[in-house]
Amino acid sequence: MKISELGGEDALIGLISERYGIEPSGDLVLGIGDDAALIRAGDRDLIVTTDLLVENTHFRMDINEPYLLGWKSMAANISDIAAMGGVPTYTFVSIGLPDIDACVVESMYEGMRECCTKYGSGIAGGDTVGSAAGIVINVTQLGWVEPDRAALRSGAKPGDQIIVTNTLGDSRTGLELLLKWGLNGARKRSEFLVERHLKPQPRVNEARAAVATGKVHAMMDLSDGLSMDLTRMCQASAVGARVYSDQVPISDELRAVAASLEKDSLDLAVSGGEDYELMIVCDPEDCGEVCKTIEAVGTSAWVIGEMCEGSEPVLCMNGEELPMPGAWQHFSQ
Amino acid sequence: MKISELGGEDALIGLISERYGIEPSGDLVLGIGDDAALIRAGDRDLIVTTDLLVENTHFRMDINEPYLLGWKSMAANISDIAAMGGVPTYTFVSIGLPDIDACVVESMYEGMRECCTKYGSGIAGGDTVGSAAGIVINVTQLGWVEPDRAALRSGAKPGDQIIVTNTLGDSRTGLELLLKWGLNGARKRSEFLVERHLKPQPRVNEARAAVATGKVHAMMDLSDGLSMDLTRMCQASAVGARVYSDQVPISDELRAVAASLEKDSLDLAVSGGEDYELMIVCDPEDCGEVCKTIEAVGTSAWVIGEMCEGSEPVLCMNGEELPMPGAWQHFSQ
Repeated sequence: MKISELGGEDALIGLISERYGIEPSGDLVLGIGDDAALIRAGDRDLIVTTDLLVENTHFRMDINEPYLLGWKSMAANISDIAAMGGVPTYTFVSIGLPDIDACVVESMYEGMRECCTKYGSGIAGGDTVGSAAGIVINVTQLGWVEPDRAALRSGAKPGDQIIVTNTLGDSRTGLELLLKWGLNGARKRSEFLVERHLKPQPRVNEARAAVATGKVHAMMDLSDGLSMDLTRMCQASAVGARVYSDQVPISDELRAVAASLEKDSLDLAVSGGEDYELMIVCDPEDCGEVCKTIEAVGTSAWVIGEMCEGSEPVLCMNGEELPMPGAWQHFSQ
Repeated sequence: MKISELGGEDALIGLISERYGIEPSGDLVLGIGDDAALIRAGDRDLIVTTDLLVENTHFRMDINEPYLLGWKSMAANISDIAAMGGVPTYTFVSIGLPDIDACVVESMYEGMRECCTKYGSGIAGGDTVGSAAGIVINVTQLGWVEPDRAALRSGAKPGDQIIVTNTLGDSRTGLELLLKWGLNGARKRSEFLVERHLKPQPRVNEARAAVATGKVHAMMDLSDGLSMDLTRMCQASAVGARVYSDQVPISDELRAVAASLEKDSLDLAVSGGEDYELMIVCDPEDCGEVCKTIEAVGTSAWVIGEMCEGSEPVLCMNGEELPMPGAWQHFSQ
């Protein structure tokens, strides 16, 4: 049976983690299935996350710049450290390269280094190999978190409220512009949305501020879109969720471009991936404190709904409960 | 300037590590440039190594089996942990997959799991993505070592002797058989050499035994062949080296097959990569003890030469000092 017939990537990950992953025991606090793994190391937990990016599956060089590709490769992994409530430390970059211009490679590493430096990490190792199959980048990001502050996907309870940072769907809408107009044309139409797609800002400070309140029940980063990521949190926490359509934060830029593209703003916001914003779950009475703490760091935070009994999220719109719009498949969609 | 014009992979790694890597400081004990990085964590050092394998650059499915590909992906990384004198703990597997049969993927993970289990590690995380560019595997392997036992490439001194485990060049010779006769044909001609290429056994126990003597000055694993790896050790330690051609351990199987292939046995042994044997450097008076300790674990160990003043290794043959034969380029050569 082919992978696609099995049910695709998530089904395969489920099968692999169940049959071939190890269960947490000893110093392994958390294994496969969250944003990252946790390993006890003295009075801290080591956080380990890894991401593989393949040219023409996850990125295209014709609608990107080497510097920004480097930046985003780092940002996506640093965001996973943020999602655990942690502090990024060291980055390991494996890169497979066709025989391209070394300047392109240098620009990629410039982007990697600047993103690392901004968020407190540094490149401490890696592997550099030839590749007959286009550019391949694997990043392994390490970080640490205090064991009592580590934020998992599995801590959400019915009645908890759901907070997200900033606005959603900007990255996806920037991608729509890039696919339609190319890099320069897209930039002319919305520098903001293109930047949101190509140069995401992981919410490390926001996540650290949130977990420092001691009020966070569950947290993850929105890498594959609210629909898919909230579904994953519901599964991990064995709860359902209600998202109120009129509370989903959507930027004015997204609305304007959506209209010009004849796309639905809410659909872009809810199903679009690669925003790398945070989704945080806490008690209703703590929501105000958590939001204020995050906003003090500089990024807005919004309550968009609540957890409830059930097993999957629904979208509440015009008094009806609808299934969440379809999930993000990176740029290949 | 293209990567090939710059001087290839090693030149690029040098450039990247110099310009974009971070220097050891704080808890980073060792950064880019050895078999792995070391990060201080309480009374232990965390070891981190990562390796990227790209289909048709590092492996070919037509002369391999999925189970063995999985095994070797793990073995290569576990060997880097051994090379530092460490104990493997957790493995993170990123895999990029075309839409192939899920059974193939399962066989690969069977091989990964069995290799991990044999050497005390377990799969604790990873990433599974689609790939339009063939199979891509990145493994990040963690381990630990006592700070006073960590074995680097940089500790070799003039006068030290050079020990290697087992026999060299078997893997390369197995590959020659595979390339000439295919999987079944090669197996018929030498099951031993094919196994040495497709199912390497990292020398974790041997390395642990060696560093426990407290006598090891420098150590690395032979992944790219004696010529290239000894050159790297000479550079890291700022010394030269002499290898005596008649002391290089060569298996009878290699000699027999080399004759049939009209290849030179010594050349295969010295320049062939992917043996994943150990190269260990210590004082002449400690050589006997180190070799005995390794052999007590079950693998033979041989003195093949010594470190000297200089900057690169030479091969001593028939009273002459010759340059070491050319370096290994994985299977693409």
